[in-house]
Amino acid sequence: MFDLTLIGIGTGNPDHLTFQGAGAIRDADLILIPRKGENKADLAGLREEIIAQVSDTPPQIAYFDIPKRRADDGYLRGVDEWHDAIALRWQEAIAAHRDAKRVALLIWGDPSLYDSSLRIASRLQPQPETRVIPGITALQALTAAHAIPINDLGAPYVVTTGRRIRDEGWPLNASKVAVMLDGECSFQSLEMADYEIWWGAYVGMKEEILIHGPLADMASLIVETRAKARADHGWIMDIYLLKRHVD
Amino acid sequence: MFDLTLIGIGTGNPDHLTFQGAGAIRDADLILIPRKGENKADLAGLREEIIAQVSDTPPQIAYFDIPKRRADDGYLRGVDEWHDAIALRWQEAIAAHRDAKRVALLIWGDPSLYDSSLRIASRLQPQPETRVIPGITALQALTAAHAIPINDLGAPYVVTTGRRIRDEGWPLNASKVAVMLDGECSFQSLEMADYEIWWGAYVGMKEEILIHGPLADMASLIVETRAKARADHGWIMDIYLLKRHVD
Repeated sequence: MFDLTLIGIGTGNPDHLTFQGAGAIRDADLILIPRKGENKADLAGLREEIIAQVSDTPPQIAYFDIPKRRADDGYLRGVDEWHDAIALRWQEAIAAHRDAKRVALLIWGDPSLYDSSLRIASRLQPQPETRVIPGITALQALTAAHAIPINDLGAPYVVTTGRRIRDEGWPLNASKVAVMLDGECSFQSLEMADYEIWWGAYVGMKEEILIHGPLADMASLIVETRAKARADHGWIMDIYLLKRHVD
Repeated sequence: MFDLTLIGIGTGNPDHLTFQGAGAIRDADLILIPRKGENKADLAGLREEIIAQVSDTPPQIAYFDIPKRRADDGYLRGVDEWHDAIALRWQEAIAAHRDAKRVALLIWGDPSLYDSSLRIASRLQPQPETRVIPGITALQALTAAHAIPINDLGAPYVVTTGRRIRDEGWPLNASKVAVMLDGECSFQSLEMADYEIWWGAYVGMKEEILIHGPLADMASLIVETRAKARADHGWIMDIYLLKRHVD
């Protein structure tokens, strides 16, 4: 039997790690690290760097390969099978280290925000006790980089995905919306004259790129900047906040 | 001339601090700390403890008193005047330390989330360059403590205030809503049979209290637990996540 700790590590800046996260890394017997299939951000050795930064006697590391996701079977069903398959890889990696009592994973951002680790963990048999250490999210790295609050004074905001913006449009009655997981610059599907955008790629990292202004003026620049950065680096992660201007 | 760094310190657990936050504390010449008028959480010496934890030679500290907020003048206007008054206190505290080039404030949670520091900073004359270091929010401490994701798979969520829930009801089309700044258990204004609640007080701290279940079953327990905890500790901070069950 083992327990499992999901440690949020922030968005690529090793200094996003919290003291709590560092302690949890030092307390782990075994850390699972994905080796293939994640995007380049995670292949860059960031997790090894973070572990070395906080631990003089590093815990055991078990690498696992992330299986390919079936794209042909509907979004939710595809994701569900994919999580089953990842859980099996975790299970195998842990089984190969029977003496490990404290198993940990280092999660990009925060395990609570658009991350599947908790859903994958819930598939493990026997079910381990699971603990979460929060980490800095891309949303926070974005607003910090632009030095803006996410909410207007006393006002609500919505967090959603690029897919939802494309399929469903702007959320009803929302004035501020943060968009994650958007590989397709879905802001182009909106009536662009009505919005202001704060966009960022590689937020929190040394490669960080920021663009802010009226959406209608900035949309093309963002599309071009994003395509070029993706080509230059071989990968990209971006995120943005939109504000609707009501007449 | 000075620059200003707003450092998110998390929600009362000193280990919520990030390495980036620790570095910014060490780099500061002067740290402003509120002395009166904040709630008890901040009076408990948390900021001094965090500074001592990361800095062998602590920077200068300037204490300032937070002025009282006028309650008789409408919410937004009252807040606006209050921010003007706080900015004056910052300005006085900084003026008394003319040699300080790098001024910092330690912000509960994250400066981007329901926090006024950026709005106050924008009132300073001359306008300093302002940098934000993100910190763990109460929202993240809540979901970590319950070991849950904030969003359903690929789904959006809304973050709002107790005031909005009371005045406007449940946000249109939302399935998950996080509620902050709610001193009045505003979930009681909802049709309680339709919701599930994950509630937490003092999230991330050793005093943490968590309650989870169907809202209709848990509402009274939360109201009673909150009142007792507030009486016992002399202060309370709480937050919750609601999920609407659609038939």
